[in-house]
Amino acid sequence: MKRDKALACVKEQLTEQRYTHTVGVMETAVKLAERFGADVKKAETAAIFHDYAKFRPKEEMKQIILDENKSLEVLDFHHELWHAPAGASLVKTEVGITDEDVLSAIRYHTSGRPGMTLLEKIIYVADYIEPGRLFPGVDEVRALAEENLDLALIQALKNTITFLLKKNQAVFPDTIATYNALLKERQ
Amino acid sequence: MKRDKALACVKEQLTEQRYTHTVGVMETAVKLAERFGADVKKAETAAIFHDYAKFRPKEEMKQIILDENKSLEVLDFHHELWHAPAGASLVKTEVGITDEDVLSAIRYHTSGRPGMTLLEKIIYVADYIEPGRLFPGVDEVRALAEENLDLALIQALKNTITFLLKKNQAVFPDTIATYNALLKERQ
Repeated sequence: MKRDKALACVKEQLTEQRYTHTVGVMETAVKLAERFGADVKKAETAAIFHDYAKFRPKEEMKQIILDENKSLEVLDFHHELWHAPAGASLVKTEVGITDEDVLSAIRYHTSGRPGMTLLEKIIYVADYIEPGRLFPGVDEVRALAEENLDLALIQALKNTITFLLKKNQAVFPDTIATYNALLKERQ
Repeated sequence: MKRDKALACVKEQLTEQRYTHTVGVMETAVKLAERFGADVKKAETAAIFHDYAKFRPKEEMKQIILDENKSLEVLDFHHELWHAPAGASLVKTEVGITDEDVLSAIRYHTSGRPGMTLLEKIIYVADYIEPGRLFPGVDEVRALAEENLDLALIQALKNTITFLLKKNQAVFPDTIATYNALLKERQ
């Protein structure tokens, strides 16, 4: 799908603010794909559609995940996690994207998973560091992403887990498992 | 087993510093057991023996865990975790303690586990707040433990996980699962 058509398609699904974020993720993901040797077009597509389901009602997302019978474990955790697998499913059924690399990058962009693909890592990190993100610690991750995608990802995961702990929120098990797996790979 | 005999038995296994820590855990665990209605004698015994295996060689601890064929998952993580299950096993075979409540409080005193018993929680928290502990955040956990054991435990788990992330160390999955389970119980 052409970039303009994809952007127009996703714009209908998002608030203006979230659309601006999406454009930031797209531009960042393209740069990261060029830098780290991933498929640039797939990175662009996954980034454009990563938040496709963000504003669907909770009950709809839940039903999509149940119907798909995948990623069911997210339903025991905060609904903030649900738009990622629900998005992967909807982008397939409503938009007609069938590339599994793109779909898995959408599916795991919030939780991570052990053994993430290069494209999954790029979308996770791009979502974290796009220019509109201003939270504490983001500049450190941006600097790491200039050189080493795994180090950037580890730092983003650490920041996210620490943030959840401070807010007294549950931590999705696969997010810790992603962090643990990346540490192990680097040993 | 009488307190004096138990202390003498464990003293042989520990450095002087670790023995002093153990006495601190014992005194704290007894207070917590009185405060929260646990079996005081079991709390005393579990506290006295909680670090029984602390100074065994890594290879011996590993072999004990393999032979016992329980708690195998700790072997994929930092050996600091190994003395807890190895201790539970050794306290049974070498000291002759067979009380499963006491043994499980020793087994899970470092990792925690989802669905911890009252005694397990007491030993975990006592180990964290005994008077010799001086690390950042310990006073907050001490204050919580005056009133609410679960809140003290949640805070201790949060501090521990945050500390591991700062040190770039892996987080044992059951430690996060313990935290998540306690949050869920409180909802």
